[in-house]
Amino acid sequence: MASNAACIFCKIIKGEIPSLKLFESDKTLAFLDVGPLSKGHALVIPKYHGAKLLDIPDDHLGEILPVAKKIANASGATDYNILQNNGRIAHQVVDHVHFHFIPKPNETEGLGIGWPTTKPDMDALKKLSEELKAKM
Amino acid sequence: MASNAACIFCKIIKGEIPSLKLFESDKTLAFLDVGPLSKGHALVIPKYHGAKLLDIPDDHLGEILPVAKKIANASGATDYNILQNNGRIAHQVVDHVHFHFIPKPNETEGLGIGWPTTKPDMDALKKLSEELKAKM
Ligand SMILES: [Zn+2]
Ligand SMILES: [Zn+2]
Repeated sequence: MASNAACIFCKIIKGEIPSLKLFESDKTLAFLDVGPLSKGHALVIPKYHGAKLLDIPDDHLGEILPVAKKIANASGATDYNILQNNGRIAHQVVDHVHFHFIPKPNETEGLGIGWPTTKPDMDALKKLSEELKAKM
Repeated sequence: MASNAACIFCKIIKGEIPSLKLFESDKTLAFLDVGPLSKGHALVIPKYHGAKLLDIPDDHLGEILPVAKKIANASGATDYNILQNNGRIAHQVVDHVHFHFIPKPNETEGLGIGWPTTKPDMDALKKLSEELKAKM
């Protein structure tokens, strides 16, 4: 599998750096975030080095959400966010794809969300949907 | 499959409400968000009614990220967030599980993120990891 000797998450996968593991399979590893936004904040990562979603094979991606669900269930949280960031401007810090499970126990703890909704022109939106569909 | 007659996303799945579809399979539907945070903001949903991640069967969850990846690829975005909200306090508005693909072209458009990191006691964190692992 793809690995990067300088990557902190690849080192965690190999056991070269310790982690508080929650789950491990051939393709997936989950562990607690050591800088949590709330109690139970965990990371689910593919055991395949790639910086962004596009870099990870589908068979690895397919396991991520079932594992996040296991953690959500174990945590007992009723309110939580699943988040994966791609790129510095989108708040990605480690360049190995990782999904955050972040409990949201109250307004102050957990993920803060800003939602700058726009009102698009519906004709432009329809055109965009056709353009995207043609590329998929 | 589980469906809810009052649910706006179940109505979109059935075609009772129009949508700007990007992708459709037996288990998954993707369409443009009509109140986008940025150009290309799309939703990927399971064709299975459930409010939160825990309510969706694994075989449906397994398809979500490969479809989000297809959309990310078609969009050409280099920076983007994948987000799924569970519960009102966690910013969920429609009670049918949905994953946002949100391009982040610049600081002002796209998802706003607040990250109130905490410095936990490492012994408490280790204890928590063991408690969670025992429940998985
Ligand atoms: Zn890595
Ligand atoms: Zn529904």
